[in-house]
Amino acid sequence: MQINKTRLQEHFDVIKGITSTELGQTRFSYSEEDQKTRAYLSGILEGMGLEAEVDCVGNIRAKYNPGNLSTPSIMAGSHIDTVKNGGLYDGLLGVLSSIETIRTIQENAVELTHPIELVIYAEEEGSNFNVTMLGSKIMTGKLGLEDLKNLKNDKGQTAYEVIEAAGYLKNPCRLLEKGQVKATIEYHIEQGGVLEAEGKSLGVVQAIAGMKTKEVTLTGVSNHAGTTPMNLRKDPMVAASQIILNLSKTPRARGLETAVVTVGKASILPNGSNVIASRVTFNADIRDVTENGIQVLEEELERLVREAADEYGIQASIVELGHSDIIRLSPEVIQVIEECAIARQADYMKMNSGAVHDCAMVAGKTEIGMIFVPSIGGISHSPYEKTNFEDIVNGANLLLDSVLALATK
Amino acid sequence: MQINKTRLQEHFDVIKGITSTELGQTRFSYSEEDQKTRAYLSGILEGMGLEAEVDCVGNIRAKYNPGNLSTPSIMAGSHIDTVKNGGLYDGLLGVLSSIETIRTIQENAVELTHPIELVIYAEEEGSNFNVTMLGSKIMTGKLGLEDLKNLKNDKGQTAYEVIEAAGYLKNPCRLLEKGQVKATIEYHIEQGGVLEAEGKSLGVVQAIAGMKTKEVTLTGVSNHAGTTPMNLRKDPMVAASQIILNLSKTPRARGLETAVVTVGKASILPNGSNVIASRVTFNADIRDVTENGIQVLEEELERLVREAADEYGIQASIVELGHSDIIRLSPEVIQVIEECAIARQADYMKMNSGAVHDCAMVAGKTEIGMIFVPSIGGISHSPYEKTNFEDIVNGANLLLDSVLALATK
Repeated sequence: MQINKTRLQEHFDVIKGITSTELGQTRFSYSEEDQKTRAYLSGILEGMGLEAEVDCVGNIRAKYNPGNLSTPSIMAGSHIDTVKNGGLYDGLLGVLSSIETIRTIQENAVELTHPIELVIYAEEEGSNFNVTMLGSKIMTGKLGLEDLKNLKNDKGQTAYEVIEAAGYLKNPCRLLEKGQVKATIEYHIEQGGVLEAEGKSLGVVQAIAGMKTKEVTLTGVSNHAGTTPMNLRKDPMVAASQIILNLSKTPRARGLETAVVTVGKASILPNGSNVIASRVTFNADIRDVTENGIQVLEEELERLVREAADEYGIQASIVELGHSDIIRLSPEVIQVIEECAIARQADYMKMNSGAVHDCAMVAGKTEIGMIFVPSIGGISHSPYEKTNFEDIVNGANLLLDSVLALATK
Repeated sequence: MQINKTRLQEHFDVIKGITSTELGQTRFSYSEEDQKTRAYLSGILEGMGLEAEVDCVGNIRAKYNPGNLSTPSIMAGSHIDTVKNGGLYDGLLGVLSSIETIRTIQENAVELTHPIELVIYAEEEGSNFNVTMLGSKIMTGKLGLEDLKNLKNDKGQTAYEVIEAAGYLKNPCRLLEKGQVKATIEYHIEQGGVLEAEGKSLGVVQAIAGMKTKEVTLTGVSNHAGTTPMNLRKDPMVAASQIILNLSKTPRARGLETAVVTVGKASILPNGSNVIASRVTFNADIRDVTENGIQVLEEELERLVREAADEYGIQASIVELGHSDIIRLSPEVIQVIEECAIARQADYMKMNSGAVHDCAMVAGKTEIGMIFVPSIGGISHSPYEKTNFEDIVNGANLLLDSVLALATK
């Protein structure tokens, strides 16, 4: 059985047309582009005879239940919103491929033991309110409607107001309860360069990395760049450089194969060309799929900051800005996906996800699995995001086989 | 012979009162505070029977010529303008001490072979138009009146307009010509921490450091902080850290005792906590009193940038934003100052200036010398700038002796 790749391509083309912007795709949840895309998708679902249920924040679930089965469903889907000037496939890939999966199964009139349920999560990217996965957090009770009153967009409107104006708040929230869904698979672009570097066309995700974000503040003594000898300086810029350089070497030096650490944000005071800085603040973003990796990097950061503070005679502090837990995907679902990949003689690899996805939010409520396809050049959240269509079709067929295997067990 | 320290203290107290601001001293050239200070100083000079000549940008020169001598003068002075929220002594120290020097010599009716000339430079700090030493540059022809039409203050007014409105433009410019002045001494606070660190109360300046400012731009590949493995990154932040750290170690590693290098200004794009930077730009401020030191640091910067570009797979460029030459002070004037210091059994040291001063502009037109007193904690350009008054008096007496020695030679 194969998905219809011409039809899949057509769906991407139409939605690209709906949301074409000067640069890439800008399709925020609750925007006009979002409404048009939902209208188009509703047409497809209606044509398939599926009834879409829209919840209190705009999450969509639509069940294909050919035999009116009372068993838990197999859920597949992703999100349709984008970052500003994002790519075509981030999120939309999983949604359109899941629709195509159900349609292929429907057309082939396969007898199922579990219904198959499409899920379209709202507001995954955090483009409106700077909170990612808002839809799946509401769906799993990690956020409540009251919380929406504390989140604001750039115009100062609360999430509550925006979602009310979009007409969703009057709908029931339909919390995802344990037992409703047997398993879910999210099919997504990798958003990194591992598959490309390894020359593989498919990834079977084993774990989603946990994260800790630390803010480091180094306070030295600002002074004249000309009149202050090197040995009389308390320069937080040099201290920060030493910490950032050595921290970046730690994963390799300590044999942490999956761990990553990034300093992408920093601010310097007073930031004058001829003035020794008084203060440097930077964020360290630490991620791994092992607790050990995160702990080693966290401890190494603390050691490096302490060491640099002593060496350069500066004040230092570290504040944890946020963290998220490591999510291990379901061994049963992983096994099903791998068996399907082997049956198709697919050139797949086991891998981890450095980014968090909606399915990480529903872990604990159901068994979860993920399928990745390569991002060319590892580029994502960019108008230059791209995946070969051949890879997209291969991934959609693997999704089809895996959903089918789970739904016929 | 001793200067009158009670009178010197009184002059500082009055001017502090004229320009007292919430935090430190704010006395920009051409401001109301500047006008009041000039009026006060004019009163003192008139009382001494000196005639002040004010030039086309507000530089003041006033000659004490007891025997109506036709020989070149010995010039002493500094500037009276400050940075915003600056200290009491930066500039004003040299002006008030030079007035006190002439007054002491006058009161003692010493027979001279050279007239003594007070100089008060206008607009040294660049507080108005972001160009430092504007007064001494005009006085030495490094800037012309036409150039003033291209300099603007924060309100968009040109230097030409501001100086015209202050009433100075109608005055002749009186270029300082070779032969007019035999030698000049500028007495100034150190603005660094060398004297304090060495436990010395007086510095005899040998050279004023030359400077090169280089802008380094490192362009890598922005990507997701979670999904991009360490070995697939082209991270300009790590490259910048390596360059900055190693550059800061170079003066010591290469035995450059007087050289300094500072990175105090940097910008990061896109500057997101969970995004690998695409571009890091920073300025390297290189200074030394030896050509070799500047050259070694410049070459080492180029080598480090090349090395990091190769190692991290990034694009790199270096642009020179500006440079100023090393100024060697006059051996004859240095010798006179040292002999006077030794005669007073002063606890002095030979040293260099990392900051540029007005006297560096008049080098080439006359022989120059500088005397430094300690800045507590090395702090300057700050309301917390401070120098012990005992040190100030010692320095003023050394200025007195040195000017007297030169003027009676």
